[in-house]
Amino acid sequence: MILARVIGNVWSTRKEESLRGLKFLVVQPVTLSYQEDGTPQLREFGNSLIAADQIGAGEDEIVMIASGSSARQGLANNNIPIDATIVGIIDKETFEA
Amino acid sequence: MILARVIGNVWSTRKEESLRGLKFLVVQPVTLSYQEDGTPQLREFGNSLIAADQIGAGEDEIVMIASGSSARQGLANNNIPIDATIVGIIDKETFEA
Amino acid sequence: MILARVIGNVWSTRKEESLRGLKFLVVQPVTLSYQEDGTPQLREFGNSLIAADQIGAGEDEIVMIASGSSARQGLANNNIPIDATIVGIIDKETFEA
Amino acid sequence: MILARVIGNVWSTRKEESLRGLKFLVVQPVTLSYQEDGTPQLREFGNSLIAADQIGAGEDEIVMIASGSSARQGLANNNIPIDATIVGIIDKETFEA
Amino acid sequence: MILARVIGNVWSTRKEESLRGLKFLVVQPVTLSYQEDGTPQLREFGNSLIAADQIGAGEDEIVMIASGSSARQGLANNNIPIDATIVGIIDKETFEA
Repeated sequence: MILARVIGNVWSTRKEESLRGLKFLVVQPVTLSYQEDGTPQLREFGNSLIAADQIGAGEDEIVMIASGSSARQGLANNNIPIDATIVGIIDKETFEA
Repeated sequence: MILARVIGNVWSTRKEESLRGLKFLVVQPVTLSYQEDGTPQLREFGNSLIAADQIGAGEDEIVMIASGSSARQGLANNNIPIDATIVGIIDKETFEA
Repeated sequence: MILARVIGNVWSTRKEESLRGLKFLVVQPVTLSYQEDGTPQLREFGNSLIAADQIGAGEDEIVMIASGSSARQGLANNNIPIDATIVGIIDKETFEA
Repeated sequence: MILARVIGNVWSTRKEESLRGLKFLVVQPVTLSYQEDGTPQLREFGNSLIAADQIGAGEDEIVMIASGSSARQGLANNNIPIDATIVGIIDKETFEA
Repeated sequence: MILARVIGNVWSTRKEESLRGLKFLVVQPVTLSYQEDGTPQLREFGNSLIAADQIGAGEDEIVMIASGSSARQGLANNNIPIDATIVGIIDKETFEA
């Protein structure tokens, strides 16, 4: 999984029938590293993605994204065309020294 | 999913039997970010892709692309060799400040 | 799918039993863009791939490649270890202004 | 599979029900090469990932990560939204000259 | 599939039960191109991978790697967490002018 920061959301009126009712968030991938003294550090990288959200992630929260066929595993219906899903919201304490 | 701009289409006379009747669009991936004041910003990145379209996306529209096995989930037939599908057209309002 | 140019082929005498009889082509990914006046433009990018070919693509032709599990969908046997297949040959007219 | 170094862990209180009980480690991808005299060399590359761990890898250990649908194969339940799993801890001797 | 050069191997004593007995090789991806006069040329790129080998590839041989779910297709057991497998050894003649 990758970590990403929630930065916004998108609306799509014309879409695949099976996507109706799903919430789509814009997320910016981040990489987590640690300084010499163990202080965690987040840095943005790459390009933003659109991920389905069923957990209720809020703006600026750091989430865990599952991609590919794994993104469909948590959904009630495994056969919808989704390739990125928010599967967890990372506890804030993770990013404190 | 990634966002992409529809920039053209391709024709293929000699192709896998199962692809007959599908429409293939050329899409250019874009990343969505937000300025300090919240204004959304789109920027092209990477290389163009060919995506199957069943929604009727038009040139210059911003669409949501599902990749990999997920790209086959919205199709009547799950067993065709498609790895990128347009699953939604993003509402224009999404990109207005 | 990505577009790619057929640039050669490879031979493999010692290989998985299930791959016998398949033809393997060397393909170089290309990205398609359009100039201001609409003229299509192809540019090579990235590294070459090996793709299975069942359509009969010839050297220098531009083809459409399906990757991942989708690459196995067009084959008589879905259970062979192939992750890239040529699923269509793009009509030459596509690249003319 | 890729090699990666275990560098930390993350906690997620709000997550997909099916992920409860799994341990998530932060891993930094590394590439293994060999010097002229055969001495193995590890170098970090790319961005950190979050991988499920069922083997009990410890900080600083070099592990083997399976990604995509393969990441779900070693789990008791194949239907959970996991796309990266630690499938082996590499023996230290591998990295000695 | 990608081409890669076999450069070493790794040992893992603590690993997923289902991986016991499999041989894991370190492979360095290579790209194949052709000079103006048709001479084939190999160039290393990217980072090394770990691939399962059932064919018996030797050091320095150029092999064909299948990735993702396709990597599991050639195995006796489709449900083991492997995402890269050597599916063929490329004949040396392929790289001669």
